Formats: sequence, structure tokens, C-alpha cells
Amino acid sequence: MSEALELVSATKSFGGWLKRYRHQSRTLGCEMIFAIYLPPQAQDGTVPLLWWLSGLTCTDENFMQKAGAHRVAAELGMAIVCPDTSPRGTELPGEDESYDFGSGAGFYINATREPWSRHYHMYDYVTRELPELVQANFPLNGQESISGHSMGGHGAFICALKNPGRYASVSAFAPIANPVNCPWGEKAFSGYLGEDRDQWKNWDTVELIRAHGFDQGLLVDQGDADNFLKDGQLRPEALEEACAAAGVQLTLRLQPGYDHSYFFIATFIEDHLRYHARHLGV
Amino acid sequence: MSEALELVSATKSFGGWLKRYRHQSRTLGCEMIFAIYLPPQAQDGTVPLLWWLSGLTCTDENFMQKAGAHRVAAELGMAIVCPDTSPRGTELPGEDESYDFGSGAGFYINATREPWSRHYHMYDYVTRELPELVQANFPLNGQESISGHSMGGHGAFICALKNPGRYASVSAFAPIANPVNCPWGEKAFSGYLGEDRDQWKNWDTVELIRAHGFDQGLLVDQGDADNFLKDGQLRPEALEEACAAAGVQLTLRLQPGYDHSYFFIATFIEDHLRYHARHLGV
Repeated sequence: MSEALELVSATKSFGGWLKRYRHQSRTLGCEMIFAIYLPPQAQDGTVPLLWWLSGLTCTDENFMQKAGAHRVAAELGMAIVCPDTSPRGTELPGEDESYDFGSGAGFYINATREPWSRHYHMYDYVTRELPELVQANFPLNGQESISGHSMGGHGAFICALKNPGRYASVSAFAPIANPVNCPWGEKAFSGYLGEDRDQWKNWDTVELIRAHGFDQGLLVDQGDADNFLKDGQLRPEALEEACAAAGVQLTLRLQPGYDHSYFFIATFIEDHLRYHARHLGV
Repeated sequence: MSEALELVSATKSFGGWLKRYRHQSRTLGCEMIFAIYLPPQAQDGTVPLLWWLSGLTCTDENFMQKAGAHRVAAELGMAIVCPDTSPRGTELPGEDESYDFGSGAGFYINATREPWSRHYHMYDYVTRELPELVQANFPLNGQESISGHSMGGHGAFICALKNPGRYASVSAFAPIANPVNCPWGEKAFSGYLGEDRDQWKNWDTVELIRAHGFDQGLLVDQGDADNFLKDGQLRPEALEEACAAAGVQLTLRLQPGYDHSYFFIATFIEDHLRYHARHLGV
């Protein structure tokens, strides 16, 4: 175990262990906490890893506490890592003023606009620094898949689209599929990237699919009673159109009656875990 | 639906519905919120009911969000009701001063000492008022079982022991089995009941078993890494001794490595739900 990792807590769950660690992130320039679920199989060998990226306001804890994922991960022999959703305690002005910008709202992109560019490089953190750290410190076999919810569904998709073939599979729950064309994304991208909308396209699922296509499939569950769907924040219709035009294989399941909550995620997480397990060869 | 019930939220989960209601409790003299999970089977007929009593600091929400119980309840066709853990907003002096007395810490007993006796009648609330209310308003078949965690495990046991045969089955996770002999119980019972320790025995699992026995079985899971076990708050050894002396059938499973958290509950809740389902005839 690297001295850079400080154990915050260790809790037995479904025969495996949920562990939370604190570390100093060189990418983000602040102290960060992440959570890892290690299934029982990790006691005797290496296991594949699912990245879970959470949505606005979340920390490393929400998914681990509410998704009911440990049961299936323990059965399948799959580790899960939940990063936090933004740098923390950076003391940038306005950092804690709104739920959809700054703390808890890093959007998994690399900010280029001052002062956010000093710390807000969540893309580099979740695709480079944290993967190196967990690979070096836990019994992982190097195989990775990625999933997430809402802002984290957007995060999972842009990580996969910008790194074709890196993740064995990618899925999302109610992703913000087209942030350049929704209120959440417009606010975040103008703050983190500035007003040049061409730059925004590098961090938008629909635009990345239009520009580069994607050889792997995309699995999406979306509740049809999701208020943020109605508010135009998620735009699965734009995702559908872009995938159809680019020949990308999209499985988009509209789930009747479900909203944007963790109860929706809990209901369908088992399907996603088994989907990733098939692609990870477990 | 009774006009006395005001819907707070309705969330689809595993094909059923989690609903939260607000109502004016005549027993407690304050407004209360409770949660009910209605499985898909409740749309076409009546279903049995599991009462879940939560522990210190909890509301109606903790179990519903963290235990992962909806999946199995939906499969089995079992409703679950989670009451809150105390009266709320009574404005009694000291109500919100500590986590283990007053708000969030009603201990499922009927207080006899002023000023708590004005509101703190959680035993009558969970065994009389709330059962009548849910039976009158939801498609329940009248069959009930009961379970709970920590203070709620104590609550489940005293409800069952004081009403033999009423609940088809009773179980608990890390119950406070002998509150008259632990710091939590001594603080709560002296506050709610006064200094006459003979009165306390009416609300203590071990003492009730000693005095009256019990013809039904008791199922208990207890983590052996539970800090509150080490601190002497739970006393399963006293429960074991009392059951052995009274010929009560106790299944006490010490679970290695597990603590007092909802991850422990989530790991073993499926076993408990299937146990209750067998006794409820589903």
C-alpha cells in the first residue's frame, strides 16, 4: 500500500470490503477522498474494475450506500471505484455557491478558464491519476469498464469516447448526453471553459460521436418520469440521433415511471453490472 | 385514501412504489412522516406487511435508501413500513440536545415521566395508531411481521413479546437486547420512565423473556466487529442466557467482520425477508 493513501474507513459488505481513502492529488492540487469496493475474490487474486462516476452534489459515498451494487459485484468478482465529483476545499471564490457549479459539480472535464483551471481537472484525475493509483495499490487485473449517473453518465461517456478501446464497456443512467445544449452544461462549460463554444465540443457526448464515432456499444437506462428529462437537461433524443447518424450501437431503454433517483439506479444496476461483467470476461 | 394522509413523495422502485406520507398523530400529538414500500403485487391484490423499526438518529428514510430491501420485497410481494424513530418538533426542552435521547431516539416505549409523557408514546404509535392507519389505507392482507436494527431491534422484540402471536415472525439486526443494563438504555429509560427500575423491565427484551417466555422464534444477526457490541450496548449474551433459561428458540448468528452499519444490514436483509415471507405464507 502506497504511503500516499490514508485509509479513512473499512467496512465489510457482502463478504468483501468497502474502503475509503484520502490522498493528495497532484492533478487537482487538493486532498481527495475516493471509495473502492473490493469483492471477496480480491482476497485471493486480481479482479476487473468498474468505474462509477456520480452526479451533481454527490461524493464517493452516494453510490456505495444507495445503489445496492455490492451484492452483485461480490457475486461477479468485480471491484468498483467511486471518485468524488469535484476538487474539494480549493477556496476558489464561488466554489460552494451553487449545487451545479464548483464543489460537487466538476463535470469530469479539464477547466481552461481561470481560476477554475488551477484545480478543476477532473478528466485527468479520473482517467490518469486515480487509475494509476488504484492499479498500483489494489489487486486489479487491469481490465476496466465505466458507468455513471447524470453528470457522471456524461463523464463515463466522454472518458470512453476520448479513449476508444480503453474500457471494455460503457453504460450510463440518465446521462447529460448533450451538455453544450442544456442549462446545466451551458453554465458549467462557460464557467470552466469560457465562451468559445467550439472548445465545449471536446467534452460533449453527442458532439464527440458526431466527430469521431465509436466502435463500442453504449447502454443507457432513462426513467420517463425523470424531471430533468422533462426540463431538457438530459437530451437522450440528441444522443439517439447522433448514434443513428454515426452508426454507433446504442441501447437506450426508456423505463416507465422511474425518476432520476438512486431508487431508479438500484432497480437497474444489476443489469448494468452483468453487462459489464460479460465485457470484462468474468 | 384517508384525508388524514398527505402524500410527501412517490418513487418507483423495483416495479413497486416507495411512498412517504405525513399525518397528524393523535398518539404522539405531533405531525409524523412514515414510509411504505408497496411491491408490484399490491397493484392487483393485498399483500402482507413487514414492520421495520430503525435505530438511533434515523428517520423513515435510512432503511428505504440503504438496506437494498426493495428488490427482495418486490420479488416476494411484501410491503414494508418504516415509521420515524420518535415524535418530531414537540418543542420539549432538550429534545434535540443528544443523539441518544429525545428526537430520533424514542426507544419504542411509552414515556411516563413529564414532560416526555406528553408526546413520547412510540410503542402505542407503532403497535396501534400506525397499524390502523396503514391497514385502512393500503392493500394489506392483515398479516404482519416485524424487524429492526439496534434501538429498532429492541423495538421489534418488545412489540412482539408484549403481543404474542400478533406478528407472524420477528427478527433483529444488532438489537439493544437488554437496555436496562446498558448506557443507552439507562439514559433513555431514566429520562422517559423515571428512576423506578421495576418499571423499566416492562420495556426490556431480556426481562420480558424472563417474565413471560415467548412461543415464537427469534432471529438475530450481530456483527462481531460492531463497536457498540464491544461497548456493551447490545448484550446478545444476556439475550442468549434468557432464551436458554426460558426455552425460547433463538437463532443468533455472529457475523465475522461486520460492524453496526447499513452495509451489515444490506448484506443479510435478504435472509431476513425470506424468513419473514415463510412465516407470512408468501
